[in-house]
Amino acid sequence: MERLTLDVNGAFDPAAGGLARADLEAIAPRAREAFEAFETRRRAGEVGFADLPSDAAAAEAARALAGELASRFENLLVLGIGGSSLGGRAVVGALCDPFHNLLPAAARGGMRVFFPDNSDPATFAALLAALDLERTCFATVTKSGGTAETMSQHMVLRQRMVARFGEEGYRARCVLVTDPQKGVLRQIAVDEKLRALPLPASIGGRFSVLSAVGLLPAAAAGADVTALLAGAARTEARCRGGEVLENPALLYAAVLHLMDVRRGRRLHVLMPYADALRDLGDWFVQLWAESLGKNPGAGPTPIRAVGATDQHSSLQLMMEGPHDKLVTLVRVAAPRADVPIPLPEGYRGHADLAYLGGHTMGELIEAERRATAAALRRNGRPTVSLELPRLDAGALGELLMLLELAAAYAGGLYGVNAFDQPGVEAGKKYAQGLLGRPGYEKYRDELLGAPAPDPALVL
Amino acid sequence: MERLTLDVNGAFDPAAGGLARADLEAIAPRAREAFEAFETRRRAGEVGFADLPSDAAAAEAARALAGELASRFENLLVLGIGGSSLGGRAVVGALCDPFHNLLPAAARGGMRVFFPDNSDPATFAALLAALDLERTCFATVTKSGGTAETMSQHMVLRQRMVARFGEEGYRARCVLVTDPQKGVLRQIAVDEKLRALPLPASIGGRFSVLSAVGLLPAAAAGADVTALLAGAARTEARCRGGEVLENPALLYAAVLHLMDVRRGRRLHVLMPYADALRDLGDWFVQLWAESLGKNPGAGPTPIRAVGATDQHSSLQLMMEGPHDKLVTLVRVAAPRADVPIPLPEGYRGHADLAYLGGHTMGELIEAERRATAAALRRNGRPTVSLELPRLDAGALGELLMLLELAAAYAGGLYGVNAFDQPGVEAGKKYAQGLLGRPGYEKYRDELLGAPAPDPALVL
Repeated sequence: MERLTLDVNGAFDPAAGGLARADLEAIAPRAREAFEAFETRRRAGEVGFADLPSDAAAAEAARALAGELASRFENLLVLGIGGSSLGGRAVVGALCDPFHNLLPAAARGGMRVFFPDNSDPATFAALLAALDLERTCFATVTKSGGTAETMSQHMVLRQRMVARFGEEGYRARCVLVTDPQKGVLRQIAVDEKLRALPLPASIGGRFSVLSAVGLLPAAAAGADVTALLAGAARTEARCRGGEVLENPALLYAAVLHLMDVRRGRRLHVLMPYADALRDLGDWFVQLWAESLGKNPGAGPTPIRAVGATDQHSSLQLMMEGPHDKLVTLVRVAAPRADVPIPLPEGYRGHADLAYLGGHTMGELIEAERRATAAALRRNGRPTVSLELPRLDAGALGELLMLLELAAAYAGGLYGVNAFDQPGVEAGKKYAQGLLGRPGYEKYRDELLGAPAPDPALVL
Repeated sequence: MERLTLDVNGAFDPAAGGLARADLEAIAPRAREAFEAFETRRRAGEVGFADLPSDAAAAEAARALAGELASRFENLLVLGIGGSSLGGRAVVGALCDPFHNLLPAAARGGMRVFFPDNSDPATFAALLAALDLERTCFATVTKSGGTAETMSQHMVLRQRMVARFGEEGYRARCVLVTDPQKGVLRQIAVDEKLRALPLPASIGGRFSVLSAVGLLPAAAAGADVTALLAGAARTEARCRGGEVLENPALLYAAVLHLMDVRRGRRLHVLMPYADALRDLGDWFVQLWAESLGKNPGAGPTPIRAVGATDQHSSLQLMMEGPHDKLVTLVRVAAPRADVPIPLPEGYRGHADLAYLGGHTMGELIEAERRATAAALRRNGRPTVSLELPRLDAGALGELLMLLELAAAYAGGLYGVNAFDQPGVEAGKKYAQGLLGRPGYEKYRDELLGAPAPDPALVL
């Protein structure tokens, strides 16, 4: 069976500032340690994401609930932010029609799914105005149950649903994804008798795409979550050893890490040549930034790009700017659809157009990918290649698990805990202080006590 | 009248690794030179973007054509890539309803507008399948007329339109935006008697948002392009002097440049706290990357983020990772709509939720912005603040012109030509070679002659 391929040759080209095989050999023991450290935490039950593909019961529960919602409603709002939104969005974006939410129900094969992942009132008000609330349900997704953005939306929507459809109507339209044991939202599930899927403590938000967090919206939109999990299981099975040249996620992590610390390539660009993987880029940014950005001495910056689009944007900088980037190009070998490029009679005299005639758009984007990879390399810029045989649920599952495992291993290589995010707590406390939360006065006072701005620096 | 405000105090905080006023004084002469160099090129007619707001005739032509299309059709496809797409997309995204394309015509107040800005056949095929072609027109946007991605789409759509609606039907449905004097597409306009708006040679793609490139889709979608240009004119009028503490675009450019070269803050993050400015981030990335990324010794990396969403993603890295980032937070003082947050009776006992009740979502996102700015600063991370009084066409115009002028001045400060993009030519030649363009065989041969990959590095 064809499968995901990782090719790191472009990162070992001496002419492109590449690594030497000796670099890889030198890091092999640390890579093995990183692998073992992860496996230890996994066996201890502290880190659960790699075992999600084999949790058939959890998948079945998400699928069943999605099916039930889809049988009664047209629209699903996923109330979640960060890891509670990005995974589901990436899967729906990759596997559904690019214009899914515009299509009539019959052409869509699933619910319309919206991800209002911000506390921006303009977006939320517009969304509620655009939808028929009677045909709309919502999933509130927060592990702690205390996420301000998500719970604000929940309380707004709860009030509207109760006002229009009564308590029963609200209960029919609201499902939760939250910690199975503790937290505010778990208590609300009990108090309000709401259906709730579990997000276990061992699954961090950015590693939750294969839990109910990602599976519920994906299944609701009509994606094949069984195949998604099977694909993830295939990658997981390929990553059971600590040898860097045998475990693809470990090789990917080692190459990106080495490129950073040995060659100053601290910006890690993920550039799929497929619009459908655009939202995957946002998911990867969270995965890489939150997992690895823990101290001033380390922490690569993930950057999302899309080919061929960004050849007309950030490629100039990647090609001729500072030697601080490593670009991973992602190929989809067989596009889902192809479109022949006709050459009209009157256009034949234009050399700038004639060569396109007789090709397909799929051939064009593939030529652009190959050309860009080659041009980067010849300009001294290292690359890595990932190739999916096609863009289906199985291949996407393979890719998601590869990147998740790579983030976990990279945490070990960078010497940081890939599974916490301590840096965002201070801002939350200031915000709660500003909003008058009892006990948080000191944060408000600290913030309001900042020195007055210099008016000369305000224009 | 309230206007756009730039506040750079957060970049001059000694505790946050900030600049000293002496840094600003030291660079003042070079800033003046950068300003003068730009004005010289502007007066010579080489660089035209800053004069677009006063070109009433061009604006009127774009508005008239948009009105004519809107009177006959429901959908507008903008065929363009990079600078031919990002500006229009940013304006439509900022000024139209967030769910514009989903709304019925009456609620929309303009055409549905789509930006298929890639050579991905799956997207293009899906888009053509999703739309009623009879109610659809398209604008082909490429200055040179030789952009492979755009012209491929043009030829595909031309064939379908001619087949279904005849030559006349195609002519009614196709308009062009291209160089007024030369190029393939200008010739096609003449040969096929198509309506064409001019994109003068002095307007580069990434500086074209206030030309027909941005105005046509914006006007078609129902945005107020007159107010947009008036806003841009206001900023332009504030930027007519070379004193760094008087010209806001020059101050912004100087601060970002100094932060890079004096403090190692080479990653420039633009983080608006408004979903509507999400696409502006992609436009900014192209503007900054293509204008400044010209040699290995210089070239900051622009990064887009959205608040509060990315507080749950890249903020961890910005807060605790390497000291290599400068974050510009953008505030919209008065949100377009606000939504009160109710506190249900049964939720009052939850301290994690109770403090939210009685506030609005607008207050929440503003508290988050203030809190994040303060937390970054207290963690030694410099910031810059931009504030729009509200998110309307005028304020957006002010912001676009500020960033364009800043890119132009920054080119002078970095010592690069902000108006070319030589680095992307090699890749185009390889692609044309692969597609068999006569005369490009050597590029194909060079690419195919690359050494065989080491199979040990492929997993």
